[in-house]
Amino acid sequence: MNKQIFQAIKEFIPENRLFTKLEDLYSYSYDASFGQYLPDLAVQPIDAEEISKIVKLANTFLVPVYPRGSATSLSGGSLPVEGGIILDMSQMSKKLVIDKENLLAIASPGVITANIHQEAEKVGLFYPPDPSSSHVSTIGGNLLENSSGPKGLKYGTTKEYVIGLEVVTPTGDIVRTGGKTVKNVTGYDLTRLIVGSEGTLGIVTEVILRLIPKPKARKTLLATFGQLVDSGYAITNILSNGILPAAMELMDNSCIRAVENYQPTGLPLDAEALLVIEVDGHPLAIDEEIKACEEICLSVGATTVKVAKTDKERDEIWKARKMVSPAITQLGPTKISEDATVPRSQIPAMMERLKEIREKYNLTLVVFGHAGDGNMHPNIITDKRNKEEMKRVENAVSEIFEAAVQLGGTLSGEHGIGILKAPYMEMELGKAGLELMRSIKQAWDPNNILNPGKIFPKPGITKVVLTD
Amino acid sequence: MNKQIFQAIKEFIPENRLFTKLEDLYSYSYDASFGQYLPDLAVQPIDAEEISKIVKLANTFLVPVYPRGSATSLSGGSLPVEGGIILDMSQMSKKLVIDKENLLAIASPGVITANIHQEAEKVGLFYPPDPSSSHVSTIGGNLLENSSGPKGLKYGTTKEYVIGLEVVTPTGDIVRTGGKTVKNVTGYDLTRLIVGSEGTLGIVTEVILRLIPKPKARKTLLATFGQLVDSGYAITNILSNGILPAAMELMDNSCIRAVENYQPTGLPLDAEALLVIEVDGHPLAIDEEIKACEEICLSVGATTVKVAKTDKERDEIWKARKMVSPAITQLGPTKISEDATVPRSQIPAMMERLKEIREKYNLTLVVFGHAGDGNMHPNIITDKRNKEEMKRVENAVSEIFEAAVQLGGTLSGEHGIGILKAPYMEMELGKAGLELMRSIKQAWDPNNILNPGKIFPKPGITKVVLTD
Repeated sequence: MNKQIFQAIKEFIPENRLFTKLEDLYSYSYDASFGQYLPDLAVQPIDAEEISKIVKLANTFLVPVYPRGSATSLSGGSLPVEGGIILDMSQMSKKLVIDKENLLAIASPGVITANIHQEAEKVGLFYPPDPSSSHVSTIGGNLLENSSGPKGLKYGTTKEYVIGLEVVTPTGDIVRTGGKTVKNVTGYDLTRLIVGSEGTLGIVTEVILRLIPKPKARKTLLATFGQLVDSGYAITNILSNGILPAAMELMDNSCIRAVENYQPTGLPLDAEALLVIEVDGHPLAIDEEIKACEEICLSVGATTVKVAKTDKERDEIWKARKMVSPAITQLGPTKISEDATVPRSQIPAMMERLKEIREKYNLTLVVFGHAGDGNMHPNIITDKRNKEEMKRVENAVSEIFEAAVQLGGTLSGEHGIGILKAPYMEMELGKAGLELMRSIKQAWDPNNILNPGKIFPKPGITKVVLTD
Repeated sequence: MNKQIFQAIKEFIPENRLFTKLEDLYSYSYDASFGQYLPDLAVQPIDAEEISKIVKLANTFLVPVYPRGSATSLSGGSLPVEGGIILDMSQMSKKLVIDKENLLAIASPGVITANIHQEAEKVGLFYPPDPSSSHVSTIGGNLLENSSGPKGLKYGTTKEYVIGLEVVTPTGDIVRTGGKTVKNVTGYDLTRLIVGSEGTLGIVTEVILRLIPKPKARKTLLATFGQLVDSGYAITNILSNGILPAAMELMDNSCIRAVENYQPTGLPLDAEALLVIEVDGHPLAIDEEIKACEEICLSVGATTVKVAKTDKERDEIWKARKMVSPAITQLGPTKISEDATVPRSQIPAMMERLKEIREKYNLTLVVFGHAGDGNMHPNIITDKRNKEEMKRVENAVSEIFEAAVQLGGTLSGEHGIGILKAPYMEMELGKAGLELMRSIKQAWDPNNILNPGKIFPKPGITKVVLTD
């Protein structure tokens, strides 16, 4: 990297927030996905003005800039694939204001999402998006990937709760988008354009979130099914009975086995599928609703249904679901975690396709996910040192993407496109659709400074590449 | 207009769907806002392919294209301010599929929004957005203006329900954005960029809407207040008690008087404000909630509170609210209808500013609106032939826009910017923010073909202009 830009940054960023040593840079070279890339420099900015200056310098010297939250990205969101400058946003975590009267939260991008949940709940409010990583991931990262977790069906995704932003643009301007009102049609919706843009269209420096009153109560059940297809019927019947659960989580047999192998919780090893269903709202309403969910599950052939009677029992049910990630991590050193999403009615077909793919390539492939909104998480557990197996993984991942699109779904529900899925963008969007996206990127970031190498496919690369 | 383009269009659009006579063109020269502009030609396309051909020709011959639904726009959305071609979308109204299993509606753009409500409700589903015009306006127009009506607080705006589109781009490509899944982060969110773009970024040819289960029951009350500020306390207290009403509609004293003058329904003429509050959900829950709303209204000083006991009583309460538009139309020949939106806590301050503006300029200014989401509708009733009064209206409208922005709000909550509010865009967005929007328009529509003259301010025009 050019020495001049380094000198220029040193003039306004003190030494303790500027990193150039190899051992420091290594810690910025990975995220929760696949691959490792060394940056040339890492900076911990403390405000929008510092970021603006850095981005302007980066444009002058044509150096890539990679914003980074807690680096829990499963798609390579924060990987510095072309070197350059890491913006470690961890120091921008001071502001978290809950505006009770306007049902808003105003937060710095580096605030941990779980803190927003906690502070909102203290005053009887609720921020529904809840990615599995919410205890470590930042709100800035969450919204740039639009990662949302289990409550998308009832409450919508992260996007539905971000109503205003302060952003440093790819050319270094500081702008505000949206504001403090839910209704806003003053020009184009730049807020929602930037949410989910994976850090390629702007660096978020402040977030305005809409909150809602906290549901008064919740009820949870765990149902197991001998036939996977029956769990699909349960989901459809619950919804068509006018019940909108806060969460409907699915785990397949491989997932159940992995959890029982890791920390036995008494799940039936022969069940083809397991559903965790949670309803929330008024106590009288949900008593009736959870009873109806129980009856529906049994009527379509559930083997067992257990409704949690206490908070402790609820925690136990969720424990089985939350154990999935650590459990499957035990199965092998490398985890490829996907988020192919299909229309709800296609979940059984998608599960069938995933089973075929697992058998065809003889891989450890477990499936869980947010069944209510069709957002599945097929995970392949492998070892990246095993080149032969990685070739099979490449093919399997390709087929997963193809299956999702063929079934009327999408490449990514909440992890983002990042680097792995970029070769498939044209398959889903078509040439003209992808070109519309690229033209926005080019108009806003003519020097391709912000998070280059993500979302847009490289010429000639039309398949997943996991091996050198 | 160039004769060649007319000849070229005649080759694939039959005579009965192509209009050139002055008497026909007159009927395309207005909408529900202010001003009248004659197009050169009007076409009724029947599919995306026809529109694509027309748009490609328009790019070749540099002729503006103005898509038009039912022309209920209050901001000039469909006015052909630079002449050219009107695309009358009324013939694209055939498709309306309710996909019960996936909780979706798939519709042609010319479908009347109320038909979507009806068809969804027939199978126990619900499409919450409900602009006052929903019995005449089209879903295509609704979504391009992101007009949403009273239920934004609880259910979000139209944008929150549009998850996929088929669109003809400004250069004539046919593309699909989003899809059938609520979760989708495959590249930039073009769906939400096009929703609310007022027809400047694409012509919508198919819409995929998310539906939700229909709430099982609802309860409605009407409360009157001697002091406007007390109605504000009622709203805040209801929300902080964990109740999220489906609607909280406010009418001011001028509004009450206009309604009583038009069709007496027994509203108290001395009330400074009136609230219509509706809760929906599980029958047991809403019984309790409406009782709490009643008690809260009384505790902050409501003069009267009436809870509807039957559907008939509910209809009567809503009649008072729905009578507002026809009632105020009686007050004068010209109505300027605004939609300045402020953070909820600023409603009393905004109402105070509107009162000052009314007195300062001595105008008939009535205020009603969706208080729950801060979306107010100040309406000035005037006569456009009275040039002296129109000058005062110009100043008053300017001050309304300034007040909304100064109070942390926005120029437009749901009517769009159109032509009247364009001069104020930079005031709200700043130079850099407006430039980001303009750069998208330029990248997608280099010839400025689609709905030119809207949203973006003309150079040198920095105030509302209503007189010649």
